[in-house]
Amino acid sequence: MGLFLEPCSRIISFGLFVVMILLTTSAVEARVRHYKWEVKYQFQSPDCFRKLVIAINGKTPGPTIIAQQGDTIIVELKNSLLTENVAIHWHGIRQIGTPWSDGTEGVTQCPITPGETFIYKFVVDRPGSYLYHAHYGMQREAGLYGSIRVAVPDGVVEPFTYDYDRTIILNDWYHKSTYEQATGLSSKPFVWVGEPQSLLIHGRGRFNCSSPTIGSSDTCNTTSPDCDPYVLTVVPGKTVRIRLSSLSSLSALNFEIEGHNLTVVEADGHFVEPFVVKNINVYSGETYSVLVTADQDPSRNYWAASNVISRRPTTPTGLAILNYYPNHPSKTPPSTPPTGPLWNDSDYRLAQSLKIKAHPSHIVAPPVESDRVIILLNTQNEVDGFRRWSVNNVSFNLPHTPYLIALKKRFKHKVFDQMPPPDTYDYKNYDINIVQPNPNATVSNGIYRLKFNSTVDIVLQNANTMNPNNSETHPWHLHGHDFWVLGYGKGKFDPIEDPKKYNLVNPIMKNTVPVHSMGWTALRFVADNPGVWAFHCHIEAHFYMGMGIVLEEGVERVKKLPTSIMGCGETKSLIRP
Amino acid sequence: MGLFLEPCSRIISFGLFVVMILLTTSAVEARVRHYKWEVKYQFQSPDCFRKLVIAINGKTPGPTIIAQQGDTIIVELKNSLLTENVAIHWHGIRQIGTPWSDGTEGVTQCPITPGETFIYKFVVDRPGSYLYHAHYGMQREAGLYGSIRVAVPDGVVEPFTYDYDRTIILNDWYHKSTYEQATGLSSKPFVWVGEPQSLLIHGRGRFNCSSPTIGSSDTCNTTSPDCDPYVLTVVPGKTVRIRLSSLSSLSALNFEIEGHNLTVVEADGHFVEPFVVKNINVYSGETYSVLVTADQDPSRNYWAASNVISRRPTTPTGLAILNYYPNHPSKTPPSTPPTGPLWNDSDYRLAQSLKIKAHPSHIVAPPVESDRVIILLNTQNEVDGFRRWSVNNVSFNLPHTPYLIALKKRFKHKVFDQMPPPDTYDYKNYDINIVQPNPNATVSNGIYRLKFNSTVDIVLQNANTMNPNNSETHPWHLHGHDFWVLGYGKGKFDPIEDPKKYNLVNPIMKNTVPVHSMGWTALRFVADNPGVWAFHCHIEAHFYMGMGIVLEEGVERVKKLPTSIMGCGETKSLIRP
Repeated sequence: MGLFLEPCSRIISFGLFVVMILLTTSAVEARVRHYKWEVKYQFQSPDCFRKLVIAINGKTPGPTIIAQQGDTIIVELKNSLLTENVAIHWHGIRQIGTPWSDGTEGVTQCPITPGETFIYKFVVDRPGSYLYHAHYGMQREAGLYGSIRVAVPDGVVEPFTYDYDRTIILNDWYHKSTYEQATGLSSKPFVWVGEPQSLLIHGRGRFNCSSPTIGSSDTCNTTSPDCDPYVLTVVPGKTVRIRLSSLSSLSALNFEIEGHNLTVVEADGHFVEPFVVKNINVYSGETYSVLVTADQDPSRNYWAASNVISRRPTTPTGLAILNYYPNHPSKTPPSTPPTGPLWNDSDYRLAQSLKIKAHPSHIVAPPVESDRVIILLNTQNEVDGFRRWSVNNVSFNLPHTPYLIALKKRFKHKVFDQMPPPDTYDYKNYDINIVQPNPNATVSNGIYRLKFNSTVDIVLQNANTMNPNNSETHPWHLHGHDFWVLGYGKGKFDPIEDPKKYNLVNPIMKNTVPVHSMGWTALRFVADNPGVWAFHCHIEAHFYMGMGIVLEEGVERVKKLPTSIMGCGETKSLIRP
Repeated sequence: MGLFLEPCSRIISFGLFVVMILLTTSAVEARVRHYKWEVKYQFQSPDCFRKLVIAINGKTPGPTIIAQQGDTIIVELKNSLLTENVAIHWHGIRQIGTPWSDGTEGVTQCPITPGETFIYKFVVDRPGSYLYHAHYGMQREAGLYGSIRVAVPDGVVEPFTYDYDRTIILNDWYHKSTYEQATGLSSKPFVWVGEPQSLLIHGRGRFNCSSPTIGSSDTCNTTSPDCDPYVLTVVPGKTVRIRLSSLSSLSALNFEIEGHNLTVVEADGHFVEPFVVKNINVYSGETYSVLVTADQDPSRNYWAASNVISRRPTTPTGLAILNYYPNHPSKTPPSTPPTGPLWNDSDYRLAQSLKIKAHPSHIVAPPVESDRVIILLNTQNEVDGFRRWSVNNVSFNLPHTPYLIALKKRFKHKVFDQMPPPDTYDYKNYDINIVQPNPNATVSNGIYRLKFNSTVDIVLQNANTMNPNNSETHPWHLHGHDFWVLGYGKGKFDPIEDPKKYNLVNPIMKNTVPVHSMGWTALRFVADNPGVWAFHCHIEAHFYMGMGIVLEEGVERVKKLPTSIMGCGETKSLIRP
């Protein structure tokens, strides 16, 4: 109780704390960064429409974690939601040696119950731009997310230069609660969440409050300071590094700054062979660094725009302002905001994906061969009248005893399906271009068990949904690892021919990749991180509807589990270690 | 997973199960009544406005538990809420020998996490009309409630006769979610929940869908079958026993059936010296049985009405239909519905409370003296800018390690304030009729520890709120006990004079009593039920805002606690017993 001070004094005392650390720690020694967060419901109007959000210390997006490679992050997370649990995933952090801190409810921990303070502790072992967000139910889209920025060690130089950096998280935003959405998704008949009401740029958007669907005027107010557009101030002639990411619930997004080139230099924490684009496609769960030089007419401001791609857009462009100092930040740009590329130009998106390669001086070569190939067909299904997503015809369901505990403690009472899901599908006969006559699938929480230190290829194969001539883009995110992106292709993956075209020379490493509509994506990783790791579509509704798998590797090497991750399912009242 | 069949087959198999029990158990032997419930969010329109409700097996109100004195009730409760916990209290059941089954989150158990199946098992040791409802956060008002009906043993005759019985739960209904309400209540500035949108009679009401506050027409539909009015069909000349109760969130209610007298025969499971009223005041948490004889013109139907009392009503009358067989149930009564007594006629309400006395042949005499007198002043306060309710200037806060476990297991690490709240207030100097100049209070989770088997008097004293000339009605509910209602009074309780007027001859026993505005209520009970028991205002927002206390008695006599109640706070990873 006394642990949590009032917001202001907390910020001040935390500030002092950080200053103390800065003063007392030598520059080369890894630091401990200690955060105290309180997670709570509150009313906010990110797009001018007032609704409940889940905030951290009163904010959504939450505080940015700023650290340096090798630092230890400690987040003391107090759950002050009334009746609702929580868990936070540190997206892109591999959790080497701390798999119990991955924050994935049902996989690595029990949910944190109301009133409880849970301590996440992990090392940020690589520099780069990362994210954090709720990983429980559909809470992420209630606003529980933020970013992690890890600097290179002192004396280490990045392969590009810039004058300062800024963080921008793109997002889409719904007015209905996650409960309403989830209830619809799991109802018969199925009720789809629909397209989002707004696109947010770093937590700020603008809904049309005069829309006839708004009930009373007190719920929508365009003068609310919550929905002032995000302003990125630049100094003429200087270069800003934008650490750009997306945590959208549904939408694939395209980001563009009117009249300014974007030079892509980082993807998911890995240096990229720089390339210049007019705009960049960002899929949910991805992070990029792009360099922007303020080299345009400095007498005006410019629009920064986020647009929906890969789904027919019904959500208006999300807008922020690129403000040329010393113009007033609220000076409206005298131009029409960018509308982005054609939403259905999948060739454009595929081509941009293919451009992303490792920086020549930062290539980490992948193993030339893999020990196991898993081909995962992504399909939309109907199971007992419920709409689901499946992988190789298995629709994933989380268990309520976390895998990590069940496997490490070798529970005799089996708490998940012991039948592993299949490594492939009938690719010879399956027609990915049609609506399948039998949309049935199996619901299971079985997992893939990998040989420790083995090299694993995963090919994600897209297919037609249950609607004719329709295939969606799925951004898949792997926990606990970075993987090499070996290739993308159109149509059906050919397991004999396509691997011959893999990029084994300079593939980028990432933790999230898109699987383009009607296409495939191939990736490789080494199963060298003891733990249990989720791999799933990062679209909130898709994972909820079954589009994911879980991988285990070397769980016997995992150190003693902290008791704080227990308390649910079969982990209730374990013997205190 | 396999445990839960589809709703229809579940009902059928449960039906078979009950039939089996009926066939195989002799009539005099106590039965085991086994229920399988799934708690889940779903969309319903109880008052024609579509919103998320928390349903049991698809229903709100949930299934009625029908049992006989001495039966054992087993409820296997599966929590299928996505990210939200749950706990269910069996209101009026004393839980003798099973204090861990009282279902009070933070007091007797950890909340039941999503995916978990918790087994409540208890004996219904007394006949009568009882309730069950969520006892966690403000979940009750999301629709998670129902009734328990316990018959007298075979061969035992009740002191009144009737032809058949029906259950009616009165309620008020909000359109905002419990999250929105709770967030407002705990915000600075305070946002009051306001008056309810509708009054429900057994889960059915009618909101005016043409109200301008309704956004889109798809959320409000007066033709939804969910909001067909409740119909009570009577056979001319016959007498129905209505087991009437209220689980309102806020409102005190008055129930009336046009043109028909109500004979009150039971209160909170105790037989009443019968008295006849035109209408009956029912406070949240109370149950009554009233007899109604169908002795009016049988050619028409009649209105049954629920009206707000004790607060200025802005919520329209709730309506049901008393249907004279064989008229059509939907035949609209040709008359104006009853509007109830004057909302601010507190004398009327006090007089009716005073009428409720034990039936002459069922008097249980109270001990003539008490060992301890606790006087509890109920006040509205402001603590650090938060609006709260307090008792003797202590605003109650639930801990996150349940008291029952902490006390029984003698936790060395103290999980609640060890300072007990005070037994009285400065009644000589405190002016109950004014707004207090200093509205501050202490927030605490300290408890009252009672000597086992001692006789305890509690006097609940009402006072002015933080608004001038305003005092509210508070229905207080005691867990684990029935108490004798020794007296009600107007103004300030005089600890010397007023006890002389106590009714020690034929006081009714109850588990819930109103404390009338600007008045007091005195009750007595014997602390003979080992356990830890909540005693609190049954208004959902008031308890949430601190209006409650907790009593402990004989916790050392409590048998071995089931591990299923653990898993939260300091009970995580206890040694498995």
